[in-house]
Amino acid sequence: MAFKVFSKFRKYRLLAPGPVPMPAKVMSALSEPMIHHRTPEFNRHLVSALTQLNQVFLTEQPVMIHAATGSGAMESALVNTLSPGDEVIAINSGKFGERWAKMAEAHGIKAHMLEVPWGESVKIEQVEQALMRHTRAKAILCQASETSTATVHPIQEIAAITGKRNDVLFMVDAITALGAMEMPMDKWGIDVVVSGSQKAFMIPTGLSFLALSEKAWQFNEQAKCARFYFDIKKEKEANEKGQTFFSSCVSHIKALDVALKIMLEPNLEATIKRTHRLSKATKEAVKVLGMGIFSNSPSPALTAVLVPENIDGEKLRSHIEEKYNVTFMGGQDQLKGKIIRIGHLGWIENSDLKIGIEALGLGLKDLGHPITKEQIREAVFKTGEILESTGH
Amino acid sequence: MAFKVFSKFRKYRLLAPGPVPMPAKVMSALSEPMIHHRTPEFNRHLVSALTQLNQVFLTEQPVMIHAATGSGAMESALVNTLSPGDEVIAINSGKFGERWAKMAEAHGIKAHMLEVPWGESVKIEQVEQALMRHTRAKAILCQASETSTATVHPIQEIAAITGKRNDVLFMVDAITALGAMEMPMDKWGIDVVVSGSQKAFMIPTGLSFLALSEKAWQFNEQAKCARFYFDIKKEKEANEKGQTFFSSCVSHIKALDVALKIMLEPNLEATIKRTHRLSKATKEAVKVLGMGIFSNSPSPALTAVLVPENIDGEKLRSHIEEKYNVTFMGGQDQLKGKIIRIGHLGWIENSDLKIGIEALGLGLKDLGHPITKEQIREAVFKTGEILESTGH
Repeated sequence: MAFKVFSKFRKYRLLAPGPVPMPAKVMSALSEPMIHHRTPEFNRHLVSALTQLNQVFLTEQPVMIHAATGSGAMESALVNTLSPGDEVIAINSGKFGERWAKMAEAHGIKAHMLEVPWGESVKIEQVEQALMRHTRAKAILCQASETSTATVHPIQEIAAITGKRNDVLFMVDAITALGAMEMPMDKWGIDVVVSGSQKAFMIPTGLSFLALSEKAWQFNEQAKCARFYFDIKKEKEANEKGQTFFSSCVSHIKALDVALKIMLEPNLEATIKRTHRLSKATKEAVKVLGMGIFSNSPSPALTAVLVPENIDGEKLRSHIEEKYNVTFMGGQDQLKGKIIRIGHLGWIENSDLKIGIEALGLGLKDLGHPITKEQIREAVFKTGEILESTGH
Repeated sequence: MAFKVFSKFRKYRLLAPGPVPMPAKVMSALSEPMIHHRTPEFNRHLVSALTQLNQVFLTEQPVMIHAATGSGAMESALVNTLSPGDEVIAINSGKFGERWAKMAEAHGIKAHMLEVPWGESVKIEQVEQALMRHTRAKAILCQASETSTATVHPIQEIAAITGKRNDVLFMVDAITALGAMEMPMDKWGIDVVVSGSQKAFMIPTGLSFLALSEKAWQFNEQAKCARFYFDIKKEKEANEKGQTFFSSCVSHIKALDVALKIMLEPNLEATIKRTHRLSKATKEAVKVLGMGIFSNSPSPALTAVLVPENIDGEKLRSHIEEKYNVTFMGGQDQLKGKIIRIGHLGWIENSDLKIGIEALGLGLKDLGHPITKEQIREAVFKTGEILESTGH
């Protein structure tokens, strides 16, 4: 069967953990005629976007924008604070933890792996032990929400440990976490927070964001990793003049300004609550479908659903995409074929999730899994019940 | 006077050397609902865009896309082919030549400056002498069209020299050149070509492109500069599977696919001819306004117009933007206030340039420069005459 995203009278539903559906106003902003980045008009959007980013990161430190994907900001976090020969502790609980460690190694930084089984949350004792074992470690790298396993880590607790030390930074990849869960950077004392545009920020892939604590800025003064494109000190200086260090991504930043207004309306808490409700509804609904949840510490940003053993998860995912025009994500690496990941970030309305849950149930049925029409109906009803219970 | 880009009944005209006006179809593509990057639909756009990029770069080698501005691809060119301790010859004839040398130095590469006065083209003898003097140089870095001075360099001639040597690469920043002038990468034997999305490619800032010759790919095997985000070997491998190494910039790449079709319709030569005609018309028209052209080797991608000595170029530029809703660029660094740069890339129709030329004349008049209405009328007429003489 041919895959057609925009088949007549069929709406496409994107329920992946990023990119995510965009609000109509964001799409409009993207389609506006180009303006130059050295104009007062663009300048207003940049300053407005930067100011709102502070309200999402919950920091008084400047938030910098890179024209790069989230991985670019992860690399930037390393090269702006560390030097070749330095050591870090990399909490490796999935694909993105592994990637951050590889990035460090690529820059001559020794990454001590704190291996955590996929789907499990790191234990505080493990972090404490790692710090005792690797006394030269200058940073702990951790995903707040590891997207490959839909698992969250105890960020506040780890920050409490590193907060007591001046010689260790706590760097958090919050690419899918920011806007999905509470993570006040300054209050908790996180040293580096990284995020990406195609997640809770509801704009296309292409921008990434990061902020550094005062302590991390002190590390920046000593950091000798080679950098130019990702030199955040130069970016910060340009931002202070209302500019970007390199050519500004005009369309993206205009869209970001619009999206942030939506994200912060009426406030960040409401957006976080909304994401949590979508998460809860999904987790309850898939139980009705007889499916389990992967992870002993499930993320509110996305849900990893265990695919029944008799079903190939990859086949299920692409079948649902082809037949029902709903995109979920599958599992990566060791989880390939075993999970379906359903995203809760972005411009998702109640009916989108209800249709997604229905498509998941029908997809299972189509592939011969013993599931009844009543179960599917009940799962959709359950979804609606949770979503509609408290408004929003 | 307040600056309003979209004042009622006033169209905004962007005549800068990038970003540039976008075709309506490109704006539409940008505004489409988000789709996931692991879908057959996106895959078709990616493959189509990559194939068309080959037709613009005129190479059989793969063209890679970075989610980064042009500067990102300039840095990528260096870190993917060189090692710390290596030496390069950097032709420094303006702001971007200077930037590329600084990037090299940031990565521990010694950049020998081949200083060329701003607005002048490098002489072949200078390049030959530099190669004799710096026998360890592994690359020559050069702007095809230095955007800060609107000056072109003899790319074909330099490539003929480096083409005879296996130990020296010729790297060309073609960010404003590609699509504005003939520069067949394979035929001329250029080793690295870099470009950016917001120039002749007519999409927003945020993507950059680069291609390597076979010789440059051999250098890649030995290159030890630290890299991860800009690792083009990994990018190439992902492209071969119809994917990108990191999250794909879905909206940008869909827009790129559309824009490339327009750029290559009926063929690249037509787009280049069109740019040359806009350039010629501008250069003739400003003469009628009594203004000179900066540069002894003017670029067809943009024109740097000398501002009369009694006039402050910065004031002229912002006055024209405020009063006539036309954005030109001013000069940078040593040329600040002394030139006005008019771009010829992108979706510029005849009337856009005519209105731009009129605005330039009226702006001069408003600021008290002795210029007659007849001169302005004549300059606009001249613009139209050249643009309309040969169709297109």
